Amino acid sequence: MRFNKAMIIEYLGTNYAGWQCQSHSPSIQEEVQKALGKLYKKPVTIVGSGRTDSGVHSMGQTANFVTDSYIGDESLVLGINSILPPDISVAKAWDVPLNFHAQKWAQKKTYLYKILHSRVRSCFYEDRAWWVKGRADMDLAPLILKEFEGTHDFTSCCALVSLKQNNVRTVLETKFYRAGDLYHLEVTGNGFLHNMVRIITGTVIKGCRGSYGPERVREMLETKDRKKGGPTAPAAGLYLKEVFYP
Amino acid sequence: MRFNKAMIIEYLGTNYAGWQCQSHSPSIQEEVQKALGKLYKKPVTIVGSGRTDSGVHSMGQTANFVTDSYIGDESLVLGINSILPPDISVAKAWDVPLNFHAQKWAQKKTYLYKILHSRVRSCFYEDRAWWVKGRADMDLAPLILKEFEGTHDFTSCCALVSLKQNNVRTVLETKFYRAGDLYHLEVTGNGFLHNMVRIITGTVIKGCRGSYGPERVREMLETKDRKKGGPTAPAAGLYLKEVFYP
Repeated sequence: MRFNKAMIIEYLGTNYAGWQCQSHSPSIQEEVQKALGKLYKKPVTIVGSGRTDSGVHSMGQTANFVTDSYIGDESLVLGINSILPPDISVAKAWDVPLNFHAQKWAQKKTYLYKILHSRVRSCFYEDRAWWVKGRADMDLAPLILKEFEGTHDFTSCCALVSLKQNNVRTVLETKFYRAGDLYHLEVTGNGFLHNMVRIITGTVIKGCRGSYGPERVREMLETKDRKKGGPTAPAAGLYLKEVFYP
Repeated sequence: MRFNKAMIIEYLGTNYAGWQCQSHSPSIQEEVQKALGKLYKKPVTIVGSGRTDSGVHSMGQTANFVTDSYIGDESLVLGINSILPPDISVAKAWDVPLNFHAQKWAQKKTYLYKILHSRVRSCFYEDRAWWVKGRADMDLAPLILKEFEGTHDFTSCCALVSLKQNNVRTVLETKFYRAGDLYHLEVTGNGFLHNMVRIITGTVIKGCRGSYGPERVREMLETKDRKKGGPTAPAAGLYLKEVFYP
């Protein structure tokens, strides 16, 4: 008999080459597979909802794997957390239909970007937020961010290395709010191009620093010109927050 | 001419032997002194408000140092943060009278203890909070904690190695509240014995787990019996939050 199990995987991406297995450097996927291999006493392959880059974190990465032996949710979660390295943890596990596929079934995702806007750096947010120093009018941020909502060709918000043909995506919702010391920028969409959230964030912050207002986003999207936007914000501020399934 | 400068120093204590210089292992004090030495181009000795143990963090450690050359607050803060390692940062610097002494002048201190009460560990709080798994009635916590308020002989809340003669201290205020995923326990006092806040925290949590109620604290304090309390909570959850001066 075969069983399909889904899990929510949290991680600090700082010490990893990213989600996906790489031949030369440690990845989250590899660590989780190694831990599952020990629990199930045979090799296990997992499918994630998508890749995250080196240095990017997750509180919502969702993955699934098919096995021919059954371990209950509670035992799986406690067991795997005792094996995984400290910077990776599994928050939840549950049974899914055999045809569930964490990547193909994903309907939308929310990414969270954390920003420390301060004259002075803070050791507590090292590798966990983008330190934006100097003057920036953060009241502008939600207005600029909102311009990314809707269905657009996001070619201008895509790393140059991308070879994707169709760059049309839908940003369903954006949020910008303060939580504690940090600003939180959230983007929910049906799909994301490579570096899309980091480029959106960099573009928002460049506007807040006085370079332009919300109208620039329309121009950027229409002309499909990456150079109209801001810098690609650092990986360390980005979190895959949640993956939504039917 | 001589100048006296105070600073607020933040740190993650995980990779250090503690605040105070040790001959064999790296300390926060040593790192800050090295950085100041580079800025002032001569050896600088700093005085902290008090020691913190290995693994204990700070958002409010206050220190001062006397020099014969002057650097402005802004230049000092920006300069030292560019030299210090990522897990130490200086939040603020200001001029103080020549006779100011960060340890002797300290009137009271607030310590914060962070607790993750969850069935499952989380990578985000590794080395930053105490993971309390299993059942615990956290509603009891503020009631047990409150019993520590007032002036008492705190011999029962002191590491056995302490050689202090007079163990009478005053706990001025306690707080217990939820912030995000974590419970926060705060203790403000005019002075603290070695491990005092960690023993108070361990005693509160053991009570929440069903071992006893608030009356145990009175018994513990009166009998001066360390064994009546709970375990010493781990260093990783403790933060020196604020030091108060006249």
